[in-house]
Amino acid sequence: MSDDTAYVVFTPSGRRGRFEVGTPILECARRLGVDLDSVCGGRGMCGRCKVIVAEGEFPKHQINSGPVSVSRLSAAEEKYDSIRGLNGLRLSCNTKLLADVVIDVPAESQVHKQVVRKRAESRAITLDPVVRPYYVEVDKPDIHHPSGDYQRLAKALKRDWDVTLDDTDLYVLRQLQNVLRAGDWKVTAAVRRSLGKYDEIVGLWPGLKSRLLGAAIDVGTTTVSMQLVDMSAGEVLAVAGAMNPQIRFGEDLISRVSYVMNKPESVVEMAAVVSDCINGLIAETCAVAGAEPTDVIELVLVGNPIMHHLVLGVSPSELGLAPFALATNQEVKVYAEDDLNLNTCIGARAYFLPCIAGHVGADAAAVVLSEGPHLSDEITLLVDVGTNAEIILGNRDRLFAASSPTGPAFEGAEISCGQRAAPGAIERLRIDRETLEARYKVIGCELWSDEGGFEEAVASTGVTGICGSGIIEALGEMFLAGILQKDGVIDGALANRFPVVRPEGETSSYLIRGGERPIRVIQADVRAIQLAKAALYAGARLLMDQMGIDKVDRISLAGAFGSHIDTKYAMLLGMIPDCPLDKVSSAGNAAGTGARIALLNRKARDEIEELTQRIEKIETAVEPLFQEHFMKAIAIPNDSERFPNLERIVNLPRPAESETVQVTRSKVSRRKQRKIRLSDG
Amino acid sequence: MSDDTAYVVFTPSGRRGRFEVGTPILECARRLGVDLDSVCGGRGMCGRCKVIVAEGEFPKHQINSGPVSVSRLSAAEEKYDSIRGLNGLRLSCNTKLLADVVIDVPAESQVHKQVVRKRAESRAITLDPVVRPYYVEVDKPDIHHPSGDYQRLAKALKRDWDVTLDDTDLYVLRQLQNVLRAGDWKVTAAVRRSLGKYDEIVGLWPGLKSRLLGAAIDVGTTTVSMQLVDMSAGEVLAVAGAMNPQIRFGEDLISRVSYVMNKPESVVEMAAVVSDCINGLIAETCAVAGAEPTDVIELVLVGNPIMHHLVLGVSPSELGLAPFALATNQEVKVYAEDDLNLNTCIGARAYFLPCIAGHVGADAAAVVLSEGPHLSDEITLLVDVGTNAEIILGNRDRLFAASSPTGPAFEGAEISCGQRAAPGAIERLRIDRETLEARYKVIGCELWSDEGGFEEAVASTGVTGICGSGIIEALGEMFLAGILQKDGVIDGALANRFPVVRPEGETSSYLIRGGERPIRVIQADVRAIQLAKAALYAGARLLMDQMGIDKVDRISLAGAFGSHIDTKYAMLLGMIPDCPLDKVSSAGNAAGTGARIALLNRKARDEIEELTQRIEKIETAVEPLFQEHFMKAIAIPNDSERFPNLERIVNLPRPAESETVQVTRSKVSRRKQRKIRLSDG
Repeated sequence: MSDDTAYVVFTPSGRRGRFEVGTPILECARRLGVDLDSVCGGRGMCGRCKVIVAEGEFPKHQINSGPVSVSRLSAAEEKYDSIRGLNGLRLSCNTKLLADVVIDVPAESQVHKQVVRKRAESRAITLDPVVRPYYVEVDKPDIHHPSGDYQRLAKALKRDWDVTLDDTDLYVLRQLQNVLRAGDWKVTAAVRRSLGKYDEIVGLWPGLKSRLLGAAIDVGTTTVSMQLVDMSAGEVLAVAGAMNPQIRFGEDLISRVSYVMNKPESVVEMAAVVSDCINGLIAETCAVAGAEPTDVIELVLVGNPIMHHLVLGVSPSELGLAPFALATNQEVKVYAEDDLNLNTCIGARAYFLPCIAGHVGADAAAVVLSEGPHLSDEITLLVDVGTNAEIILGNRDRLFAASSPTGPAFEGAEISCGQRAAPGAIERLRIDRETLEARYKVIGCELWSDEGGFEEAVASTGVTGICGSGIIEALGEMFLAGILQKDGVIDGALANRFPVVRPEGETSSYLIRGGERPIRVIQADVRAIQLAKAALYAGARLLMDQMGIDKVDRISLAGAFGSHIDTKYAMLLGMIPDCPLDKVSSAGNAAGTGARIALLNRKARDEIEELTQRIEKIETAVEPLFQEHFMKAIAIPNDSERFPNLERIVNLPRPAESETVQVTRSKVSRRKQRKIRLSDG
Repeated sequence: MSDDTAYVVFTPSGRRGRFEVGTPILECARRLGVDLDSVCGGRGMCGRCKVIVAEGEFPKHQINSGPVSVSRLSAAEEKYDSIRGLNGLRLSCNTKLLADVVIDVPAESQVHKQVVRKRAESRAITLDPVVRPYYVEVDKPDIHHPSGDYQRLAKALKRDWDVTLDDTDLYVLRQLQNVLRAGDWKVTAAVRRSLGKYDEIVGLWPGLKSRLLGAAIDVGTTTVSMQLVDMSAGEVLAVAGAMNPQIRFGEDLISRVSYVMNKPESVVEMAAVVSDCINGLIAETCAVAGAEPTDVIELVLVGNPIMHHLVLGVSPSELGLAPFALATNQEVKVYAEDDLNLNTCIGARAYFLPCIAGHVGADAAAVVLSEGPHLSDEITLLVDVGTNAEIILGNRDRLFAASSPTGPAFEGAEISCGQRAAPGAIERLRIDRETLEARYKVIGCELWSDEGGFEEAVASTGVTGICGSGIIEALGEMFLAGILQKDGVIDGALANRFPVVRPEGETSSYLIRGGERPIRVIQADVRAIQLAKAALYAGARLLMDQMGIDKVDRISLAGAFGSHIDTKYAMLLGMIPDCPLDKVSSAGNAAGTGARIALLNRKARDEIEELTQRIEKIETAVEPLFQEHFMKAIAIPNDSERFPNLERIVNLPRPAESETVQVTRSKVSRRKQRKIRLSDG
């Protein structure tokens, strides 16, 4: 060991090496390949390279230093400390190696840090965004050696960051001169780095700009929701949602497709209104985060195939008719501003996850990315319930996907007292086994209806209807209480003894709440749910057939409906196959989470792009087995399987001799076929 | 030799080989790497693969065939013949090899054919466009094997043409579904093929589309001109020109830059009006060619640096002030529609040749490409005279470039009776050595002014002024006739004897034409031309100094002025250095030709991109030697060199003792400096 070198060990990586005394710690880290962030390139400005000098932990026998193993606080560090606070840490770019030392790189100083997620069971997100900020000081123009502003910027980015630019997009040229001069030739470039391709400038700011934002956007048929994300920290800064303004062209997917079929040029307008909506969400979330929309340098979008096409301004007409051909089944990368008219950083790109098939969209791909069924040996059934249920089944070996035409009953549509999940809607319900009377909870109120103060608490909203999860519980409880027979008939014979059961012509109804605007379940409501749940179950079952299994290890219910539903009732109605109830969970906003993963980690994009090609697509509309499963699944829970896991926790009513399924095949068939046709186009 | 093979020789390539009997001739050509075109991929539709079956020329000893060496006319050929005519040629895709044969590939069937150019001395253009049409038949969608329309199109292009697509631009997705279905899954894709990168679809048409168009556009300060080109044949289908509508923001470059400096947002509008103008030219030329603007799949643009920036919507403000920094000194590739609002094929790209320096534009680069000084050992001086003269000097070893602040005198501005080159303008002039009276020709009339019927012939336009080439001849003749002294003074002493010389206060004038609107040359006109020609000469001389030479081998004058000027008078006035007069030529519309070369040959782009980096840029404004050359070049021809080549053909007046240069240094210097400042911004 000569006197003019010293030994440095980085934790937690364990990388170590000997360097000349006086070498900045950041430089040591780079040469050793230690994951240590920096935006300003070692100029003591950005604070991203903060480290902890931890001499005490250094193994005794390797120490040959006094207490001073690194240089004193520099002027830049003192300035940084006074403004933003160093809290005892050091800026590694301004800290020089003097003697042997251990340097700890805290998580927040790592480029590829892990992002914290709420759910414990969810897969970790490793930060590795496609776009990163790079601060450079650009040579000024020289009349004796003429060169373009762009070429001098490119030279600085190459020199300091090994960024390799090729041609530039016009938006860079248009703003370049002003930004370079406004920043006195010191600028931050947001650069999209591509392996094996040229790098590209996405945005440019005068001076140092260390926080860049991303947007993960889920365009649902009904709701558009967005997460605004700090691309360096991975943290969600704000979330916002809005009604999808395309609703004025049609409440559901089918009516929107019909609208386009009748008026092809409306595609442009339908794309435009969603763009406006997204612009509103960008403005709203940026205001919360104290940022500008122009700070948004990357977007990821997901949605069902029809939304996917409509946002892109591509006609969804083909998705309304067999053979349901997508315009593309691969990822789509476009310019957020030029192509989608979004107000973002002018060079921001919008990345659409690939659609899996004509009925299984980019939202389903995002659910896969979030839930990771392909990473496990366990066989997972993923269900994203919307107007159509998108169903994924499989494990690391094989994955299957299908869409089931459930119709909108699970969203409260086609139900007489049904409504969207909104304040005033009944979402929980229990039936007294003696009186057959219901008690319930409504969204927006913590009290049950039989608790004191309930009426006062709901006075502002009223009790306005029953939402999707509420109707599932209502039917489950009606079944358990014997009001609903296995064939789905409301037992009119009970009307004699129980005032809540009332004859309604040839059928009967069940009253949940009386008053001026009574809330009840009529026979047609039960039929609508029976058809929807049979379609969902049949879809899942079809995929299980394809995979050659009749049990799944895990069921994950994605989406808003999946978040609110009591999985016990879902199984009780036979919506999903039997499975240990502790293995049935809500995946929450899995589509949104998948979008966020694709936003923060570029390898996740490769992963889902490869995966969607590999997923085996099953078209329920042309599978004869689907019809068969569907017929058998009309009954409650259904006629095709036993539910041992369910029976362990609830006493299923024993069917009487007379209670055979009354719904005739032809009748169901017509209904069902209309639905399939409708939901297909 | 077995019986089931035959030998084929292709001319003119000489490639030859043995193939199975029954192999289509096109297939043989492909396997041998013979340059033989095809758009429809061997379906007998496009007629691009026509060949001449030339059995007779086959060397005797190799013939083992009877008279029938290829298959009979196919049904497809008969149909083609009846509609478009085969003229005895064969469609090689429908012609099968039966026995040994010689096949001649005519020039028009070669992909890389040579394009015919008018001037014999000009370099050949080999056709090798970046975009070519490919006809394919795409698989229909299959409900059992769902895949995107784009993926099936990509598969067909890969299978039939080895085209490798990656991501697609949104415009392709937006039109894809309609085009595929309109063409019943038979479509032509215009594909941009890039070496080492992915290929890209530029446009898409139902059915077979074999003619694609390109546009070569020269955006001048005053005039915008366009050539519409058939990209497969290389031929110019139509040309059109229009005034640059930016003139309303300022007549010359400097006033346009000033306009932008005062009102930065006007850049957008100035770009928009040029785009409108170009759209007009596209519409006009397409109408002539019987084509649609959407057939235009590639554009090349050239212009001086300020025009280059303004067309792109990039502020030219920096070009108005030292250090004259370009936004970029490399080629620029943009989308014609998205970026420039041009009405073309939606995916068409516009390629701007690189600017060489802040004063030497993409037009000068195009002149270099057209004239090819870098391909020769001869030292060429290229001069493109406009408001600034762009000057290139060199040969294959070194090239230098500079811009000289000539001002607009050569364009007829700053001249008392000056005007643009337009009908009615005097463009030729001779002075009778005895009477000192002038005879002249005007644009739009074939007669000289002293010929019978001249006045009647010019009655409609009148004789309205004198254009750039006219004033050069006028001054040259005045000098030869002794009216103009070496120092540029009009000799007032002649007024006594010759009525055409008239006293005008302290100076004198020379009358070319009397009447109500007399046309004359005043002393200030002579001064203006002296300053302009001195600047031009000084620029050329500066580059010669840099190269260490004092003779050039060849001089080429580009642009409209260069086309009309009599080179003898140019040299007589000392605009250009001495050179054998038969080596001084007009390069015609060399900027436009250079643009067309870049349009038709992709390697020419690489060539000029590499070359512009290599050209040594000289900034006249900061070179002290420039001032020195300028001062010496004020006199006529000038004081810095002798002109032996000129003296061989004209008797230069011998200067009297008294005729020393009278213009004081300080006076010229002020004028000159104002000019330099003006033309620099």
